[in-house]
Amino acid sequence: MGRWEPDSRGRLEQAAFDLFAERGFENTTVAEIAERAGLTERTFFRQYSDKREVLFAGGSEFQELVVSAIATAPAWLPPIDAVAAGLDAAAALLEERRAFARMRQAIIAANAELRERELIKLASLSAAIADTLRGRGLADPAASLTAEVAIAVFRVAFERWLDDGNQLGLPQIMRESLDELKAQVGAPAPVHA
Amino acid sequence: MGRWEPDSRGRLEQAAFDLFAERGFENTTVAEIAERAGLTERTFFRQYSDKREVLFAGGSEFQELVVSAIATAPAWLPPIDAVAAGLDAAAALLEERRAFARMRQAIIAANAELRERELIKLASLSAAIADTLRGRGLADPAASLTAEVAIAVFRVAFERWLDDGNQLGLPQIMRESLDELKAQVGAPAPVHA
Repeated sequence: MGRWEPDSRGRLEQAAFDLFAERGFENTTVAEIAERAGLTERTFFRQYSDKREVLFAGGSEFQELVVSAIATAPAWLPPIDAVAAGLDAAAALLEERRAFARMRQAIIAANAELRERELIKLASLSAAIADTLRGRGLADPAASLTAEVAIAVFRVAFERWLDDGNQLGLPQIMRESLDELKAQVGAPAPVHA
Repeated sequence: MGRWEPDSRGRLEQAAFDLFAERGFENTTVAEIAERAGLTERTFFRQYSDKREVLFAGGSEFQELVVSAIATAPAWLPPIDAVAAGLDAAAALLEERRAFARMRQAIIAANAELRERELIKLASLSAAIADTLRGRGLADPAASLTAEVAIAVFRVAFERWLDDGNQLGLPQIMRESLDELKAQVGAPAPVHA
């Protein structure tokens, strides 16, 4: 087997996802992933540090995309709308990979370690968004709060999108969720209070 | 040593916190906690299933308090203000235990497993709040979104409160954070968009 394999990364990813879905993440070995992909373990380790990384390798790119969309949104946009631009970018990326995203989510949901890892990743994304908002001149606690709101909208919209019954695209669900949030949070204080 | 120990739970908690802070969570054994408290391991295991539970045992009571405050808030309150009542209740409880809360946070921050556990607990609190809001007649996704907003405000306010320099009480910080969030999220859409 040659040192160079056309799209070895994509083949390893596909093999890993199939095996995780069939047997569970914890019952799948790197050797089995490599074999299913028709590649060697050595090739696997040139692409990924371990089997968990197959699920999380896209995270940095995803975070970079979101952060960059927020950073480059027009300066006159209020922070919440700059964040919406970041969510739009995320939604567009994920919309192209719906089957992949649903499979990944099912694998993660079935394993406590992976669920925890995913939460850590979201916390890190929130911190990166808050940093970006500070870079746009927003002070704390507004920056941290707005970043957490972005994650909240993302999580809720993402779950709705993965629901089988839902035929809407993620960009639309994301925008609707943000509007719904604005309606809830922006509700006038009650006269009784 | 008698079977019944006055405030054995409180003594074990204090001993565990002291040892976690001195040596780190991972370098502390149940035997050492019991010894420091002047109690037996058997007494420890009558109170806690393992050393991690010393840090997380209060979580159910905390969640119950928050959920109950939201459930019993006046029916005419908008969801976000019912949630504010839950945050008020949480803040009042924590305000009484600031030194404890700060010590606990430092212990958790130093250990990846504990950080992940804490994130899981917050996700579970969010789900419980969303359920409670549904019980108040709020449909999804508004219920999930509003619950996530509650967690966001809680996290950001809690961190500000633990900061040494901050002399404000948690109830006040919590209310300010919610107001700040309302100001950010309720910002009018830009004319340019």
